[in-house]
Amino acid sequence: MEEAKGVVKHVLLVKFKEGISENQIEELTKSYAKLVDLVEPMKSFHWGKDVSIENLHQGFTHIFESTFESMEGVAEYVAHPAHVEYANLFLSHVEKVIVFDYKPTTVRV
Amino acid sequence: MEEAKGVVKHVLLVKFKEGISENQIEELTKSYAKLVDLVEPMKSFHWGKDVSIENLHQGFTHIFESTFESMEGVAEYVAHPAHVEYANLFLSHVEKVIVFDYKPTTVRV
Repeated sequence: MEEAKGVVKHVLLVKFKEGISENQIEELTKSYAKLVDLVEPMKSFHWGKDVSIENLHQGFTHIFESTFESMEGVAEYVAHPAHVEYANLFLSHVEKVIVFDYKPTTVRV
Repeated sequence: MEEAKGVVKHVLLVKFKEGISENQIEELTKSYAKLVDLVEPMKSFHWGKDVSIENLHQGFTHIFESTFESMEGVAEYVAHPAHVEYANLFLSHVEKVIVFDYKPTTVRV
């Protein structure tokens, strides 16, 4: 098994609160993406809506994934004022959230 | 916002049952990876353990992510006998699971 050197994926699964508009979600998503420019160790960002067919998504509707070069980078991000300010705004709109960090490993079989 | 053409990410967040050994998890992971060779539309696979520091992982300990060229590919995978057999084995070891599919979108800011 090969672990990508140092790279850490930071994944959020989110269910937004009732009543939030698509526009508000788009604004929150753009502000999330802007953190890539504001927080040096944050290297990339993408997101998506659930399109699953197995009905095992447990009510979560959105995913946000960012990439860091190391766990130290994630720690710097978590403590960064731009992230703290954004996280407070973001979480005020969220009914439930899971935050999961991992170092991706590819299995050669 | 740019949506990657057709590509679908298939993400599982998992908490295994108490009592499962690291060896059993490794065997399950290897068998999961072998599905890439058995199910044509499944293009790649990686996994990882939670290393998050924010304590918002809600008890989930493992993530498995595979990539498909389309939602039709995911549907073919879900119905494929090799996947059905594997899923029955895998789910028998799982205390809770979320399955989330999405088309990754990158935001240019």
